[in-house]
Formats: sequence, structure tokens, C-alpha cells
Amino acid sequence: MGGMTYTLVLLRHGESEWNAKNLFTGWVDVPLSEKGTAEAIRGGQLLVEAGVLPDVVHTSLLRRAISTANLALDAADRHWIPVHRSWRLNERHYGALQGKDKRQIRDEFGEEQFMTWRRSYDVPPPEIELGSQFSQDGDPRYAGEPIPRTEALKNVLERALPYWNSEITPDLAEGKTVLVAAHGNSLRAIVKHLDGVDDATIAGLNIPTGIPLVYELDDNFEPVTTGGRYLDPAAAAEAIAAVANQGK
Amino acid sequence: MGGMTYTLVLLRHGESEWNAKNLFTGWVDVPLSEKGTAEAIRGGQLLVEAGVLPDVVHTSLLRRAISTANLALDAADRHWIPVHRSWRLNERHYGALQGKDKRQIRDEFGEEQFMTWRRSYDVPPPEIELGSQFSQDGDPRYAGEPIPRTEALKNVLERALPYWNSEITPDLAEGKTVLVAAHGNSLRAIVKHLDGVDDATIAGLNIPTGIPLVYELDDNFEPVTTGGRYLDPAAAAEAIAAVANQGK
Repeated sequence: MGGMTYTLVLLRHGESEWNAKNLFTGWVDVPLSEKGTAEAIRGGQLLVEAGVLPDVVHTSLLRRAISTANLALDAADRHWIPVHRSWRLNERHYGALQGKDKRQIRDEFGEEQFMTWRRSYDVPPPEIELGSQFSQDGDPRYAGEPIPRTEALKNVLERALPYWNSEITPDLAEGKTVLVAAHGNSLRAIVKHLDGVDDATIAGLNIPTGIPLVYELDDNFEPVTTGGRYLDPAAAAEAIAAVANQGK
Repeated sequence: MGGMTYTLVLLRHGESEWNAKNLFTGWVDVPLSEKGTAEAIRGGQLLVEAGVLPDVVHTSLLRRAISTANLALDAADRHWIPVHRSWRLNERHYGALQGKDKRQIRDEFGEEQFMTWRRSYDVPPPEIELGSQFSQDGDPRYAGEPIPRTEALKNVLERALPYWNSEITPDLAEGKTVLVAAHGNSLRAIVKHLDGVDDATIAGLNIPTGIPLVYELDDNFEPVTTGGRYLDPAAAAEAIAAVANQGK
């Protein structure tokens, strides 16, 4: 079995209603927009066209990732595969910024602080106030879990990695094609781990929505090809260029 | 804990595209119709209104039950609960009748044979031909499983009961509210087991689509109230009367 590799598919959820409204979302459980729904279905069609058919799916506990998995798998005729969910795959917790307008936060705190919160590896925003409108304390899905009140990307990696090691790699080791349907930052954390991306570079690495990113992994769960491959490389390159140009 | 009971919710999927076309469906994996989609969402709203919130869901491997669970749980804000699936909760396998028009079968074989296949407890239709259009041999979701080529209701009960005992009752015993999203005949099998319905009566017992049926069960997993309770009793009574009148 010298040439045997494991297949991992990462799928970032499509546009949510709050992406469209330019609000910090984090753990607030907003639904996909119509555009996001179409992106998820297209993601499933790309899996079929590439013949990459998941045997098991892992999702976060957030509706936009769960719906993306449901829609993509239904489109790929794989709606019947086993499902596992964990808060450890959730989006980064945006702390006190959750529910706030991005432009307002930029105006109030200035460009430098705004970009630090968005793109630094280890500086989290202020903690969310317990009991406030967009806090998750009391939400039954997190009962008994050590959930955060704010997170930097570093914290996302620290809570996602135990799940990667204890729940995802065993499925891969059984030879299953594993789909992880999750979020910009939880997928970035997995990619940082897989590709060994350094702390300064990872925040600038953007994973496009709705385009399956396929990694072939060796026996040590290390990528055969750094960065994996997008199932629609042209669309992925275009989406990445569009994000890069936003900052200019 | 003398007064403690377990809560089980049975939900039959809404109308599928083949229900609407009057075809025998069985294990053929057809999607919900628009009406069936609306029924599933309404089912979730009924759960919320009654304050009956599932902690775990069990579904068949068929799209119409899986979609019903996804839609109902999303409407009930319980999309994030753990999911388990098994072919043992599938609809009855209709054998060689799968994909056939019900009226045509009635005309070809006569009313008596037609009603025997539809409503007898232990007479299955002829076996489906392997490799034929509506057979499930080769379908990866059933790989390695001892799947049938035809079934009577008796066979459905015999394959559903091991799943009830090994997978569903342990969840109940942990105090979880359990949702089973499945089919007319797999739910009939569970109801026969729970309520001790005799062989002659069970086939005439109709479970309406899209209306959650809630059982409180005692320590022996026996119903506190025979027959449970529908969360929309008036709509359930109307649906049951409509089926009863079809035969007249």
C-alpha cells in the first residue's frame, strides 16, 4: 500500500445573510443567503464532476455550515453518509464585535485596530458581554463545553486541532473520503496545520466559499501537494484575487 | 425518579414527487415535492410550539426522510443536534412493484392481489430483479448490508426492531428527546411494537405525514398513553379520515 493516500475535502460555506450585510458574524447563527445556497449546491456538483465522493462529513454547529453540507451532499447524491458535528469547527468567535457593522467598527476604532482584530494571528477582539444579544451563553448546543468569549485565529487552531486529531484523522485512516464543511477561520486553522503555514502568512491566506479544496494526505496526514487543489481552480483564483484587491 | 418518562417523536416524511405521481416508491430515492417540503417545515414549527425539542435524530438512508429531518430541525432551531442514519429505518421495500404505477398494477393483477400486497402483514410482492432500473443492488449506501429484494410489513418490523433496541432506546435511556424521521411503514413497525397492535390491525393504521407523533415512554420503553399524541390532533384526525374515505 506504498502509494495509498487519504482524501480530505474542505468546503467553506457560501454567503450568509450577514456577509451580505457586512456584519461581524462569528458564532451568531445566521442562515445562508440565496447566493450562499446556490454556492453550496454548486459545491456538490463540483464533487460529482471530479468523482470525489465523501464517505463521512464533519460540520460545525452553525447553520450556514450545516446547510452547506446538506445542500452539497444532496446535490452529490451523498445525503445519506454519516454526519458528525462539533463547536470545535465553528467560525472564530468575534467577541464583542459580533453583530456589529464592519464599517462602524473601522470608523470607531481606526484602520489599524480594525485590521489587527481581523488579521492578526493572536490578538483577539474584546470579550463579548455575557447575556448580551449576540452572546452564546445559555445556548443549549454548547452546554457543558468550554466555549470562548472571544478568539484570535490562534485560539481557533488550538480548539480545532484536538478535533482534527481525535475525530477526523481516524476517519481518514479508515480510508474514508472526509468532507469538512466549515468556516473561513476554522478551515484556515486546518490548512495552517496541514501546510505548515507560518503565523504571519496564514491570516492573509483566503479560502474561497463554495469551492471544494481537496488534499491528498500521506500516512502521516501530511499533504502530498502543499495547498491541495481546488475543484474549480479558475473560479478559486478569481475569488482569491478579488479578496486581495479589496484591500487596495 | 418515579415519574420520569422518555420522549420519542415520530415524524413521517411529507409528500414525495412519486406520491404525487401515484407510483410505488419503496427504496427508490425520490425527493420531496414542494408540498412535502412545506409539510416538513410545518412539522418543525409544531415541535417549537409544543416545546418538544429533539436532542438527537435518527433517519433512514432515503432522501425524503433525510430532507424532512433537515427541514424540520432547521425550522425548530435544532439543526445542530447529533444525527444517526440506518437502512433499517427505510420504507418497506416494494420489490418488483417499485417504480410501477399503482393504478396499472391494480388493473393488471386485480383489486384483491393489489390490496394484499399493499395491506397484508406478511405477504410481500414479488422480488425485484437485480440490476433492474429501480433495484438498489450496487448502491454504495447499502454496501455490506443484508438488504432485501422485497418486503412485507412483517419484514420491516424484523429489521427495524434491532435498530430500535440497539440504537434508539439507549438514547432514550440517557434522557434524550429522540426524533425518528422515517416512512409510513417503518414508523408503523415501531408503533406496532410500542402499542402492541395485532397483525390484522396494523396495516389499517395510517400515520399522517408531517405531523409529529409524540410518545411518552416508561422505564420499560412502553407508552404511558397508547397511540401517543399528535402535535396537531385536528389535522391528524382529518388526514386519517381522508385515507379511510379513499377506500370507499
